[in-house]
This record gives sequence, structure tokens and C-alpha cells, in this order.
Amino acid sequence: MHAVGIDIGGTKIAAGVVDDDGTLLASTRRDTNPEEPREIEDAVVDAVAELRGSFEVSGVGVAAAGFVDPTRSKVLFAANLAWRDYPLKDVLQERLGLDVVVENDANAAGWAEFRFGAGRDVNDMVMLTVGTGLGGAVVVGGRLVRGAAGAGGEVGHMRMVPNGRACGCGHDGCWEMYSSGSALVRETRAALATDPERARTLLELAGGKAKRVTGPHVTQAAKAGDPLSIEMLADLGRWLGSGMAALSALLDPRMYVVGGGVGEAGDMLLAPARQVLEDELFARAQRPLPEVVLATLGNDAGVVGAADLSRVLLD
Amino acid sequence: MHAVGIDIGGTKIAAGVVDDDGTLLASTRRDTNPEEPREIEDAVVDAVAELRGSFEVSGVGVAAAGFVDPTRSKVLFAANLAWRDYPLKDVLQERLGLDVVVENDANAAGWAEFRFGAGRDVNDMVMLTVGTGLGGAVVVGGRLVRGAAGAGGEVGHMRMVPNGRACGCGHDGCWEMYSSGSALVRETRAALATDPERARTLLELAGGKAKRVTGPHVTQAAKAGDPLSIEMLADLGRWLGSGMAALSALLDPRMYVVGGGVGEAGDMLLAPARQVLEDELFARAQRPLPEVVLATLGNDAGVVGAADLSRVLLD
Amino acid sequence: MHAVGIDIGGTKIAAGVVDDDGTLLASTRRDTNPEEPREIEDAVVDAVAELRGSFEVSGVGVAAAGFVDPTRSKVLFAANLAWRDYPLKDVLQERLGLDVVVENDANAAGWAEFRFGAGRDVNDMVMLTVGTGLGGAVVVGGRLVRGAAGAGGEVGHMRMVPNGRACGCGHDGCWEMYSSGSALVRETRAALATDPERARTLLELAGGKAKRVTGPHVTQAAKAGDPLSIEMLADLGRWLGSGMAALSALLDPRMYVVGGGVGEAGDMLLAPARQVLEDELFARAQRPLPEVVLATLGNDAGVVGAADLSRVLLD
Amino acid sequence: MHAVGIDIGGTKIAAGVVDDDGTLLASTRRDTNPEEPREIEDAVVDAVAELRGSFEVSGVGVAAAGFVDPTRSKVLFAANLAWRDYPLKDVLQERLGLDVVVENDANAAGWAEFRFGAGRDVNDMVMLTVGTGLGGAVVVGGRLVRGAAGAGGEVGHMRMVPNGRACGCGHDGCWEMYSSGSALVRETRAALATDPERARTLLELAGGKAKRVTGPHVTQAAKAGDPLSIEMLADLGRWLGSGMAALSALLDPRMYVVGGGVGEAGDMLLAPARQVLEDELFARAQRPLPEVVLATLGNDAGVVGAADLSRVLLD
Repeated sequence: MHAVGIDIGGTKIAAGVVDDDGTLLASTRRDTNPEEPREIEDAVVDAVAELRGSFEVSGVGVAAAGFVDPTRSKVLFAANLAWRDYPLKDVLQERLGLDVVVENDANAAGWAEFRFGAGRDVNDMVMLTVGTGLGGAVVVGGRLVRGAAGAGGEVGHMRMVPNGRACGCGHDGCWEMYSSGSALVRETRAALATDPERARTLLELAGGKAKRVTGPHVTQAAKAGDPLSIEMLADLGRWLGSGMAALSALLDPRMYVVGGGVGEAGDMLLAPARQVLEDELFARAQRPLPEVVLATLGNDAGVVGAADLSRVLLD
Repeated sequence: MHAVGIDIGGTKIAAGVVDDDGTLLASTRRDTNPEEPREIEDAVVDAVAELRGSFEVSGVGVAAAGFVDPTRSKVLFAANLAWRDYPLKDVLQERLGLDVVVENDANAAGWAEFRFGAGRDVNDMVMLTVGTGLGGAVVVGGRLVRGAAGAGGEVGHMRMVPNGRACGCGHDGCWEMYSSGSALVRETRAALATDPERARTLLELAGGKAKRVTGPHVTQAAKAGDPLSIEMLADLGRWLGSGMAALSALLDPRMYVVGGGVGEAGDMLLAPARQVLEDELFARAQRPLPEVVLATLGNDAGVVGAADLSRVLLD
Repeated sequence: MHAVGIDIGGTKIAAGVVDDDGTLLASTRRDTNPEEPREIEDAVVDAVAELRGSFEVSGVGVAAAGFVDPTRSKVLFAANLAWRDYPLKDVLQERLGLDVVVENDANAAGWAEFRFGAGRDVNDMVMLTVGTGLGGAVVVGGRLVRGAAGAGGEVGHMRMVPNGRACGCGHDGCWEMYSSGSALVRETRAALATDPERARTLLELAGGKAKRVTGPHVTQAAKAGDPLSIEMLADLGRWLGSGMAALSALLDPRMYVVGGGVGEAGDMLLAPARQVLEDELFARAQRPLPEVVLATLGNDAGVVGAADLSRVLLD
Repeated sequence: MHAVGIDIGGTKIAAGVVDDDGTLLASTRRDTNPEEPREIEDAVVDAVAELRGSFEVSGVGVAAAGFVDPTRSKVLFAANLAWRDYPLKDVLQERLGLDVVVENDANAAGWAEFRFGAGRDVNDMVMLTVGTGLGGAVVVGGRLVRGAAGAGGEVGHMRMVPNGRACGCGHDGCWEMYSSGSALVRETRAALATDPERARTLLELAGGKAKRVTGPHVTQAAKAGDPLSIEMLADLGRWLGSGMAALSALLDPRMYVVGGGVGEAGDMLLAPARQVLEDELFARAQRPLPEVVLATLGNDAGVVGAADLSRVLLD
């Protein structure tokens, strides 16, 4: 049966019809204003109506950045949107006349990779989305880990370094301060500032100014052989691997799926991650080494995962 | 229906009959030689026979320290026993004529607390057993997390401090190097060595020698008001709380259940843990604070949990 | 013989006549524009002329924030001023017709405390100035440690935490990221953000907004008994003590002199520092414990120290 | 004028006649019992008598592992010998009829490198002796830094990692837990234990057993191209460089002189140290990079330095 998936971002929503195999049959978009939750709902209703014009659908899955309660009904808190304890499922069900489930966006994307993407052949998987920050989703025994209050899966805020780098969340040493696009840019700029003779390639890409260096610049320069950029990506990858080793002690997943913009660096990121994961894995000699692979679904993962979750009964 | 639980330790086995409510109806013990797996099996068979003399039982759950494969059949690796990739389930089933499941001992104990002990009213829980080392068990959505290869739940080997204290596992900075009875003793002895004027109470308990100080000495002295001992337990508790905060970012459990010998320090351990958990909890203002409570089943937890697991179908 | 001391700040200079005993006999000020080095020199010349109207002076000592070459002649680099490899001594000597020496401002202030302030009775001392950042001066065997290139004494940029907090200097984990007024404010704001129910006193002082909390607010609230503020100052003090312990392993000074605005918290800062210094001091049982005391000369220290240094021959 | 230098080790003493240029003209040895201080004194007297048979000498310098008071007269505490607050200078002067000075052995060796070895052309230098532990000596402005109580120069016990590896001194995270022969062996063995397939070369040298691997094995294997051994030495070197960066912020020496047995790895150790020193150096762009060089005097440094110090007046 087809389902609609909706991925609510800060300034737009993406919607699509997804079949049982995770194939995205049609998609559409709407621009939205994050300050106006009602406007976002209107956009959802409008997009679903458009898609239902061509497809019969069984339900709707909605993915949003924030904490979603364990019954997948309420948005408890959304980082960039005004919802607080908001019964989004009920509101949308009434307007749409369709079953709706709500899910955290990183969880939805991770679920898509688990069901139809890189993790489709495993039962235990952790998704790590290395974008501006470090998001994630945890699948244990074929089920998404949501947490008692819907606040689970926030891998980026596990502490890696006591008294480490100050994170925007108010704490310090969070994993995303070491393994994210922001970390990559900050570290690269700092390296350029303390020693500007390194990495001419990188500075040229950024128009000669360290302050203009971006994550994609680093990846591009690394692919062109720039030693500093290669080292910066390797550093990020090593922190990824180190956190994976901690997760493996706890959860022992079969696979780590790495997505997000920084993931485009591919093996320049993943090879160092694999090496450190192997070096730091507890009881290395008594267990298989988890796989570390790239995500395969790209930006569609949120829509695909949300749609599929609308068909998954809660335990 | 009643079931038998077996807890295989280094030098003895404990066995008991457990009813549906987790009540231990009868129990027995056998001394064993860890070098002789066959002798351990004989002891299991003998103990089960004794218990079946008085009770009708539906199956047998066996708990052992080590990795157990995902089908709960084979002991992949046992820290203190000679089993390697050993089909313990099949061997015992054939000799007993009863269904058998095998489980890691910390998992079995955690399961008992989840089903019948401190965690019986929650659905998401982490058990932390603070004994000589730091063991644990993770329950997510009412299911025990075992890991893709049966190597999950090893909380004590999550890294807390990069380049931290060298652990017997070959890595460094493992949580159990900061939150375990061994850590407590090591830190206390070091404090006494660098400044012997502190903590006369503690030294008196240990017959005047820092090298003879044990974990129970520290707890006893702390209860008597010894400032160094109180501080040492609080330090351990703070490390516990810090690791709990990391686990909460990932798994968002409702409750942490603290067991093991060091747990006897009670709130001298748990109060600092709660404080740090609150201080370091991600998105503190947007979520409930997890409970931190003592385990209630004591040393019987392994037997009770193993018995109960014999009645739990794998997913 | 009297000497003139000049303390060049970002937007003003302070000048004074100082006698052999470190007494400030007269002082004057000039506003200056940090963008205009020539204007600063004019102000120095003008202020010295004013002071020489009333006193006979033997020479002039000039203190400035930056690296000063080992011969105390050139400003190699100034953080907030435009001088680069600038022969300030020669320029001023020619204009003043007096002997001139140039020194780093933190060194000058530390020298004043060593000669006439808290450290006047010791021979080996480290000054720690806990202001916005963490500055310092090191006196070994009665001599100021300047470094081979004049870049010594930058205690605030010793690394305390690998992969620690990102410092404005481009590196991470610098001591001043943990022991400075900026660190105090950042940590306090973070604590308020993650748990706004703590420290009503503090929030009231700051007009109800965590973002407006300043260092003096914290000190004031701590003196009024606010638990969060007391804890924040104690935390800062513990980091101070931890760094002192490292310095003691290397330099074994008799005394640490703590100055700067945060020093006004007094024993709320120093008591935790002393405790950690004692706890972490290498070979505690085989050596005396260094003293930890407050600076006594306040804001005059730079002028007094610079004046006195004009009378000290280089080795 | 010639002087005699004595280097008191755990089980033997080395003695030699040293001329004004630091040339060792003659030397002799005596076996000694560390439990019998009197026997050590007899051996010193005997060795000096032998050397005076052939040379006229002006005085005697004695180097011993321990804290020596600021007047270079008393051994306050000796790690491996029974002296406590012992007036060694007076005792030996009376028996020898010659001027005697006493100095810490690492300081004596560092002084020799400063006067006649790798550091003979600089004025500010830090010696780092990477042997079983990490010792050192600090020369500032041409003077040896001894500390207010004679406890300075213990670089190996500066803390590098909060809550880091437990050190034999009772504290944690000491530099020597990361940059010493013991650290090298411990880390290498751990790496071999967690992944025995790495480094066949190294295991062959050690007769197939990880527990028998020694520091010289690692150096030898690294020279033969063994990747694990090369990596282990580089790791040690990086920790050296990181500590050097901290020392440079504080003391700004011109040169780091690396001695001790591990120093024999040469650039396999020093190149990574130089790289990290450069990467982590405060204000890198505003100052010269300190040199990092090997010591040149080898095992004679203690004798040569002690002899020379007998000719140096205290300030």
C-alpha cells in the first residue's frame, strides 16, 4: 500500500508518495515559515491533497526535527519550530481524514536506510548523519529506539571529552563538537589561522580567506590531494570511529551507516573511522567487526522513512 | 509455570526454581572448577535434577559471564571459563530433556530487575552493576538489547576519557576505570598514599595499611562520617551520573537501576550520580529526569532473570 | 632613585613616579587610540614630561600587552596595538632623553608583586592574573622568566585538556578556557540555560536574563550565599589549583599570587584552588606546600613593576 | 681546573674527572648497595681517591636521584636510596677535604647538555630524558631551575590528561604515562593483545610473546619498517610535542634536548614531536619555532654535569 511521507524542514516541507518497497513514486514541495505552525499544517494538507490526486494512500508519516512523544502523536519540543507539546497527529488526522504518525526526522531518515537503504540486510544498525551537526538513529533488533520520552537517538550529544569543547546545547565535549560539518570548518579555520602556509589549495577555493572556508571546500580540496584537508577529514573520521567503538560496547550493532553532507567525503572519512573503530573495539578478538558504510538514500531518506513508519505498528 | 534459573560463576553455580512472578521458590548450589566445562555441565544437570524432585518446571535458563550468540544457544566467549563457540544450549537440552536458553549473566540480572525488581513498572531501563567492574544490561521498549553478535550491554567498556586510565581490556578510559569497586579502591589508596593524614577512620578499618583498604571499608567509613571516604564514593557516583547522561542522550531510558556491591553505599553513591545526571542531561528542560534507584533483588537476580528468560520467546 | 612606570592599555595609558620601595608618588593618565601608535608615543612623552615637572627620575619602564624581545627593546607583537617588531625603546629614549626599558604588561605586574607586593619575601613565585583571560608572570630565583624570544609567561595558553574548549588563540583546552572571567561567565550562563531554576539571586542581579550575567554578578551572588555562584567560583578555583600543581612539578615556586578581577572573590576562589593544589601536588609528602595568596597591589601593579624594571639590569 | 663528577645510581656509582671544557679525562665505577648509604659514601670516597691519584681536582659534584635542597647540600628525599634530609655535602666534604655540591641527577645531566652538549649555544633550554620514566631539567637564562624547595624540573609529573592514566606517583595523567619507555611498552603490548595480527616483526623479536616486548624491541622493529612500532614511537613523540607546546607557552625555551634510551629512535620520535609542537605552539606566527634535538653526551652526562656544577656558584 502506498503512503505519504512528509519531511518538515526549517523553511520548507518535502512530501512524497512511497510504495511498500521504499520507492519514491512522486514528490512535491512547499515553502513555509517556521514562525507560523498553522501555515506549516496548511502546507502539509495542501501537499497531501496534491499527491492524493494521483495516488491512493493508506496513511501519512510526518518527520520533524524535535522530540516526539512515545506514541508518535505529539511534538514535545522542536528545535527550530514553535511547537511545544503539540498534538500534531490529532490535528493532521482530523484535517486529512487519514492515519498519521509523527516521528523525529533523524529517526525517520535512519529508518529509511534500515528498511530500504544501506542497512536493509541487517537487524541492528546505527545511523550517523554528519551534517552541520551530528544526528542519528538507532535500530535494535529491527525496532527503532525512541526512548521512554521520545528523546533518544541524540548521538551527537553523547559526551566524548570531559571538559571538552563547549556545545550549543550548554554542555561540553559533545560528540558533534568533534564529528560534524561545523567541527570540520572550525578546526580547519583554526589550523589555517595558526599556520597560514599550509593548504594553499584550500585557501584558493575559499577566495584566499580562512573565514570563508566551508565543509564542501575541505572535501573538494581533499579530493584534489590537499594534505591539510585530508588530515582534517581523517581527524573527523577518527572521532567518528571512536564514538562508534563506545556504541559497539553498548549496543553491538552490525552496521554503522554514515550519511549527511560530510559523508560525501567517502572513504577519506570512513577509512579512518573504520581503523579507529577496530583499534578501540572492546573484545576485538572475540567478535565480528561492525561494517561502516555510506548511506544510500540521500535527501529522500526523511520522506521515505516517514512514509514507511506510517505502516509500522508501535509495539 | 515454574522455570529453573542457573547462574554460573567462576567457582560455583547457583540454581533455583522461579515462579511466574519472579519468586524464588527453592534454590541450591554446587562448587565447580572453572577449568573443567564438563564438570560445570554435570553440576547443572545435578542441580536441575534436585530441583525437579520437588517442582515441575517448563524450562531452564542459564546465565554465564561471556558473550552469548543472538539465538541464546552458544557461549561464544567466556571471560573466566574455557568455553569458546560452545553449543551449551544443545548440550544441556539433550542431557536435561528440557528447553534451555543461555544468556549473559549481567543481562539475566538486569532482566530480573526489569521484570520483578526496581524496574518492574518501566519499559526502558538500564541496569548498572557496580561490583569489581562495571557491568550492565539495557532494556529498550521492554526488550533486552543483546547486540547483533551477542556482545552488547558492556557498558563498563564505553570510553569516558580519551587517553584515560588503562583498562584490563587493553583500551583506556573505560567507564569501569572510574565507576567500579576496583576504581574506588585504587583511588582511595592513591589518596591515602599522597596524603596519609586524611581519613584515619579508613586506615584504622584497614589495620593501618593503605594497601589493605577494600571497597567495603570505604563504604563503612563513609557511613561513619569519614570525609575522604564520603568524597571517594561521591566521585564514583559523579562518574556514574556522567555516563548515565551519555546513555540518556542515546537511549533515553526512564530509569537507571544500580546494583552490585558498591551499590550498598546507597545515596552516598546515588545522590551525586543524580546531581551530575541532571547537570549533564541533554535538553534537560524539555524532558523528564530519569530515575536513579537501587536494585532490589540482590544476588538472586541472575537466577531469577535466567529462569524468566527461559519463558521469553526471541523476536 | 625614582623612576617612571607607564602601563599602555587598549584605550589609555597610566603613568606614575615610583620610588625605590615601590611607592607610587604621583600618577597621571592619557586617553589613547590603539590604532595610532604615534599618538600613544606622544601621550607617553607628554605624561613623562608632566611627571618630570615634579620629580627627578632615573629612567622609564614601559609595560605593554604583547611579546617584547629579550633585550627589552622591541615590541615584537602586540595583541591590541599595531606594533610589529617595533623599536619602542629606541624611539622613546630619543624623544625622552632617558633610559627606557619595555616589558610585557603581565610580567611588569608580576614583577611588582614580587618586589613590593604579596611575593616580596619569596624568591620563586608565579603570578596568575585571572581577569577576562588568564595572564601570568614567572619569577625563578629572583629573576623574571621572559623566554628565549620574549614569549614566555603565557600561562593561560598551557593546555589543560586535550581536545578541550576551543580558545581564541586557535588551539584547544588552554588553561584560560577554564580559569578566567570569560570561562566563569560562559559556564554560569550555560548552567542557567540548562536549568533556570537554579540561582534566582544571580538572575535577579542580571535583570532576569542569563545572557546579561557578568563575572562581578557571580562574585556578588556568591558572597550573598547563592549556591550556583559559589559552585561556579569553586570550579574555577579548582582548575586554578590543578594548573598550579602542574607548575609546581616543573618550577616548584614558593608562592602563587592570584590577581585580576576574579581574584576579588577571595577565598571562595583560593580555598578550592589550595585544596586541589594539595591533592594533585607531586611528591606532596616530601615537600612544603606552596602558598596561594591574593595580589596586593591592584591596578597599580603594571606602573610600579614597569618603573622598577627600569632599574633592573638584564643578566 | 679539573673537577670530579659522581653519578649515584641504584646499584652502582660512576665517577670521572672532567676538565673545563666538559671532557671526561678519566672514569671509574663502584658497585653499591642502595640499602646502605654509608657504603655509598665509602664508594664515593674511594673513587675520588683513585681519581685524585692521577689528577689535581678543585671540587666534587655529586648527582643523585631525588630532591636536593636549594643550597645544594642536603638530599631531602631520594626515590631509591635511604637518604632523608641527609647532609650529604657536609659528610662528604669532611671525608674528602674538598668542596662538594649535590644535585639532582636529571638536573646534572641537563646541565651537561646545556654547557657542553646539544644546548651549548643556547641560553634557554629544556632537557627531556625519555627513559623508563620521563625526567627533565630546565635552564632559564643560563641558570638551572631548581625550585624553591629543590623539587623543580619534574616534567614527567606535569598532568597532561585530566583523569588520565594512573601514575605510580599516586596521581593521574602525568606526562610520563604517555611519553616514556614504560608507556611505549604498555601501549605496544596492549595493541598486540587487542589485535595480534599486527606487527609480526615485533612479536618475532620478542620470541612470540607480547608480554616480552621491550622498548628496544619497538625501536629495532620500527627501524626495520614495522608499521605498528613506527606508529607507537610516533604516538609517544606526539605526546612529547604536545607537552613541549605547553612548556613553550610558559617558558619559551630556544631548544628541547631529548635524551634517554627511547631517544635512540631519533627522528622516528622527534619528527612527530616537532610536528605537534608546531601545530600546538601558542602564537606560532609571532615567534620562532623552538629546536628539538637529540642529546649528545649519552650516559656520561650525569658525571660531566655534576663535575661542572661544582664550579658554578649559586646565585
